[in-house]
Order: sequence, then structure tokens, then C-alpha cells
Amino acid sequence: MVTTRLDEPARALSTTEPPRRLLFGPGPSMVHPRVYAALSKPIVGHLDPYFFTVMDDIQRLLRPVFGTASAFTLVISGTGSAGMEAAVSNFVEPGAKFAVFANGYFCDRISEMARRQGAKVVRLEKPWGETFPDAEAADFLRRERPALVAYVHAETSTGALQPGKAICAAAHEVGALVIADVVTSLGGLPVNFDGTGIDIAYGCSQKGLSCPPGLAPMALSPRAMERLRARTTTPHSWYLDIKLLCEYYDAGHRYHHTAPISMFYALREALALIAEEGIAQRFERHQRAHLTFVKGIEAMGLRMHVAEGHRIPTLNTVSVPKGVDDAKVRRRLLEKQGIEILGGFGPLAGKVFRIGIMGPLATEEHVRSLLQALEEALRAEGYRAS
Amino acid sequence: MVTTRLDEPARALSTTEPPRRLLFGPGPSMVHPRVYAALSKPIVGHLDPYFFTVMDDIQRLLRPVFGTASAFTLVISGTGSAGMEAAVSNFVEPGAKFAVFANGYFCDRISEMARRQGAKVVRLEKPWGETFPDAEAADFLRRERPALVAYVHAETSTGALQPGKAICAAAHEVGALVIADVVTSLGGLPVNFDGTGIDIAYGCSQKGLSCPPGLAPMALSPRAMERLRARTTTPHSWYLDIKLLCEYYDAGHRYHHTAPISMFYALREALALIAEEGIAQRFERHQRAHLTFVKGIEAMGLRMHVAEGHRIPTLNTVSVPKGVDDAKVRRRLLEKQGIEILGGFGPLAGKVFRIGIMGPLATEEHVRSLLQALEEALRAEGYRAS
Repeated sequence: MVTTRLDEPARALSTTEPPRRLLFGPGPSMVHPRVYAALSKPIVGHLDPYFFTVMDDIQRLLRPVFGTASAFTLVISGTGSAGMEAAVSNFVEPGAKFAVFANGYFCDRISEMARRQGAKVVRLEKPWGETFPDAEAADFLRRERPALVAYVHAETSTGALQPGKAICAAAHEVGALVIADVVTSLGGLPVNFDGTGIDIAYGCSQKGLSCPPGLAPMALSPRAMERLRARTTTPHSWYLDIKLLCEYYDAGHRYHHTAPISMFYALREALALIAEEGIAQRFERHQRAHLTFVKGIEAMGLRMHVAEGHRIPTLNTVSVPKGVDDAKVRRRLLEKQGIEILGGFGPLAGKVFRIGIMGPLATEEHVRSLLQALEEALRAEGYRAS
Repeated sequence: MVTTRLDEPARALSTTEPPRRLLFGPGPSMVHPRVYAALSKPIVGHLDPYFFTVMDDIQRLLRPVFGTASAFTLVISGTGSAGMEAAVSNFVEPGAKFAVFANGYFCDRISEMARRQGAKVVRLEKPWGETFPDAEAADFLRRERPALVAYVHAETSTGALQPGKAICAAAHEVGALVIADVVTSLGGLPVNFDGTGIDIAYGCSQKGLSCPPGLAPMALSPRAMERLRARTTTPHSWYLDIKLLCEYYDAGHRYHHTAPISMFYALREALALIAEEGIAQRFERHQRAHLTFVKGIEAMGLRMHVAEGHRIPTLNTVSVPKGVDDAKVRRRLLEKQGIEILGGFGPLAGKVFRIGIMGPLATEEHVRSLLQALEEALRAEGYRAS
């Protein structure tokens, strides 16, 4: 039935045995054993009554994580970037003016996606690592009067945290909807969706939620849902069409695509763990771990790339000290200790280490072990504190 | 740090305990314990050297499953429908003529996606369950002279198998590329990518490959890759942009998005199991199970919806006998025996059962148990063989 030439020889491949890593990079983060256990539970069909209870649980458990009482929550069957594309493609109508606060790589990515969906993109720019003050942000939006506004709450490429309240207020003044990228904040620090005034937010499963990568949770304000229902043109993407996805989430559970069942099990379990810990307690734990980290970094004679008060607790950028090759330090950490941290890219290539402190590793004890390993690796690569 | 009102009460949620199902629906199919074990292995980062070996293994192991020696293989981080959208969005340029052989639901879906990408869609139509004879297919393409042609190899909504050789030959005559939907055939019957002359094929992880849902394997012919490289307009989708994805698969491993690590582990393991069984042996096992099923169905006095010689071995449509409520039969099977089969939809709603015989359940023994359970459920719902 198949040509012999193409036949794969019937030989045993070794089973999947990944090396053990301590994931201190910008994500994925470490996963709790209960989440792995959920991931490997026997699947049911995507139209099975049991699966609908899993979807319901996820929708409900996402609300406190986003910090919303009234938003519609759902999960996109793709990674965080699919969430970004869903946010853009469902709300950009042809020729719409799309304003971006651009201070890092993911701001560039969302600009590019908006252009591909036919938007006219206007940008307010800042160097990577800086943030936009309230008045400057508001002036830009009053001047441009866009239909949509996008900002990245926690810029993974820079470590800078952008507050959204002034952006949302000014955007709503001019009748715009606000898209917030919360990929690196969701589950690790407050997103405060309602209090900030966000209309559309998307995150990912593999950072603050400590679940494997593969899903993008989203929240949509009543205002966003209204705009969606009023849209008359068809979005370019069928796979990410939220109007159609809502019909699958709604009580009628109309088939759209086959949901990634196992990943939904895992996400539900990760969210249950967060609910059990308590969302406020979880955020405080991450904040404490972050402060311990910063103190240790400064004690080593190193400095943080982002100014105090503008840092993301879950994603720390540390300036690479003069004379040290960051790639060598990272390779040493990975090979000798199984520790993953990542470097910078774009304008920050070779200039920063990007160190994630999320989920199970966001404890003072784990941070102290990391600091010790980092110091040893830096010294081995020639670093001497001045 | 978060308002108390939004705090989820710190109560234990029961852990994920799905009911045990025998998945005889159109997919997802049953998953081997080794695949579940791989799924729950500790994750590494998406830029970890170990993960690149997993990607390499998957690319290599996919080739015999697609039946190709020279195609570029990759995996889309989304379900089969994301694979469909990747095929369409990367190859439709604005205003391109897109010809569809339309004889089922997924033909309609690909037509809709092509329209959303700006194509001019032309269709040759047949009732659900019929297929296109070679001469008729070729005439249509010679008349329309499209830039792209799409057909569904195994139509999950109807159970009909569409041969592709004449379609591909005529399409190439007029300079068109051919997209084949192999979602329901990949891994369960020969796709024969090279021999048929397919240019772009996409499948899914959860049917013939017996892996959980969430990934869409793809294969691209050298001709498709050339067309992709020559494309001057930017596709609307960034997430599914194959040119960018290739840079992540290539030796440079340039970051595009965070791959769903756990799902890749699972897919690699599922493909390893197929290689160990032997692809020809696997196809023969599915064919034998299918023939046993058809014989049993006919012995019960039931009839297959699709004519002999045009059936998909992995997805069987059985006509619902007169006077029997198909929904009641399906509910009884699910609730009393934990067996999932699905019904028809669109023009086949209430008229057929859709029964998948794939992966671990594609054995004569499992088929005999299924036939017995189905007969019991039919009799309980009033069926008497005439």
C-alpha cells in the first residue's frame, strides 16, 4: 500500500527522555506535577459533556487571574502569539487606525500583525526598557484618535512594565478599544483588567500560569464583545474568529475546531492550583522572590537594566557586565547546572540576561540558588565585581 | 495587590478525572500509554538544544507517514484547522483563483478560508458522500485554470475518499498548486504525497496518528516551497507564516513563537510508535479492521453510506436505519458503555453514524466489540433487521 522505498525501517526509537532543566528563562516556566498528571489523563472527545465542564471551569478560573468580574474569557488553541493574532484580526477592520506604544520586540510584532490585517499603524516609540508616562501616552492618543490601541503590559524583551490606566482612559475618550498584551504578566502579577479599563487581553499558558506552552487565554470586555457583534466585515482568520469560537463556548457548543483536550486539562489544573494558593498570595510570593533577586544582583555588583518602579517581577533583565560574554555564561549554566536563562535580542543583544522568576521557582530559596549559580558562572567567565 | 472581590476562594478543586471513553468517533482517537508518558515528561525551553532534536525527529518521521521522500515537513502549532488556514493563507495571493472540489463540510470550510484570504473561489460540487471521477475533475481544472486547487482526501463529514492523482496532473498542466486535506487519512491510510503529486498537505495529530489534538503536521513539495519563496505580498497571518516558521526549523533556529513543547514530545512518540509498527503494516491493519467492520454492519442488515471502493477505512459512515433516532443510540452508547461515536451534520444530520476505526482500536477484536455494542444499542432503540 506504500512504496517500500519510503518505508521507515522498523527500529525502536528511544522513548522521550528530556534532560532536567531549571527553567529560569522568560518562559516556559516550571510545571507542577499535578499539571503534568492532568496532561496525561485519558482524553475524551471535544464534544463530550465532560469536556464542556473543563471549558466552564477554565472560563471561570481565568476571571480572577485576569482581574475581571464581567469579561468574557476563553482560550485560543495556539500559543501566546496566536492570542495576539486573535486580538488583532478580530478587531482590525480594513483601514482602521491602530496605535502602538512601541518599546520592545512584542510591540513590533503586534505592529506587524496589525499591518498584515490591513490597519494603518501609528507608533509612539521609546528605547527598549523605558516606559510611557501617563501624560505623554494620553497626548499621543488624543492627537491620533485611533480606532484601536495596543500596549504590552510586561515586555518580555526588555523587562519593563507599562501601566495601562492612563492609556485606557485616553483611548476610551476618543472611542478606541484597548488591546493589552499580558503574556508575561498573567498569573504572576496583577493584570487588573477591569480596574485598568482593558478591552481585549491575551496571555499564554507557559509563563505566570506555569502550564506547558500551547494555549492563549483571552479576556474581552463587554465593550469589546459589542464591537465584535457589530462588525460587518469578515476577519481574515477563520481559525481565530472569536464570533465563531463563542458559539463553541456558548451552551449550544457548536463545533468549530477540535480543541486541544490534553492542554485544556493541564490549564484547568494549573488554574486550580492558583485558586488554591490564592491569587493575592501568589502575586505577593512573586513580588517577594523578585525583590530577593534584585537585592542579590545588586550585592554582586551587577545592575538591573530597567529603573526601579518599572520592573516586571516575573521577568528580570540584568545588564551583562563589561568584558563578559553573555552567551558563554548562559551555555555554562545550561550545560553544568541545567539552568536555562536567556539573553537579550534586537538592541539588547549581548547586553542583558533575561531571567524569569515564575511559578514554582518564585521562592526566596530557589532565587538564592539561582543567584549562587549565576555568580559562579560569571566568575568562571572572568567577572570580578568592581 | 488585587481587589478582594475578585479573589477566588482558596478551595481545593477536585483534580482532573475524566471518564474513560472508547473513542470510536471521527477523532480524537485513543492514545497509546507511551504517548501519554511522553506528554507528561518535564518540558525544556523552545530554544533548548534537546528540543531541536525533537523537532528534527518529527520532521524525519513525518516523511514516511505522508509518503514523501523530498517534501519539507513541519508542524503548525494549532489543530488541523490551523493547518488548513496555514495552507490557504500562505499560498493565496490577493485575487487568486482558488478551485475547490466540494463534496462535504471541510470542502466548505476551505472555501470559506480562501474567500477570507482574498481568493476568488470556484467550486465543482457533488452531493455529500460522492466523489469526483478523474475526467470530470480534469475538465473542471482545464476550464477554470486556477492558481490553486484544493480537495479533501478523506472527508470526515461524509466518509468518502477522493483520489488525487488526476486532480494533481490536471492542476499542474495549468500551473496550479494542489492543496490536499489529509486530516482524516494521515497515519491511517496511504497519503502517497509524492506519488499523487500533492504540493501542500496538512493533517492533524488526533486521528490516524493517535496523539492528542493540538498540532497540524504539514508537507510542502519543492514546487510549493519555490512558490512560497517567490511570493512578494505578505500573508495576512503572521502566526501561520510558513516562511517565518522555516527559519525556526532551519539550522539557525530563529525564534518565531514558543512551540507547544509537551505536544511535540507526544507527537514524536506517536510517530516513533508508527515507525516501529511499520507504516505498511499499520495501513494494512487499518484496512483489515475496516473490512471486518463493513462485513459486520452488513450482516446486521445495515448499509454503508458511501459506495464500495470509495470508502475511507478510518472513518465509516453507516446509514441510520429507518425509525431509529440516531442521537438516542449515540447517547446510550456513551452513557452505558463509554463508547463515543458521532452523528452526521449538514445534509447528513440524523442520516448517518460517523464511526472512526483508528490507531489502537483498529483491530478485528475491538471492531467486533464495537459491533456488538452498536447492535445492542440499536435494538434497545427499536431497530429490527428486515
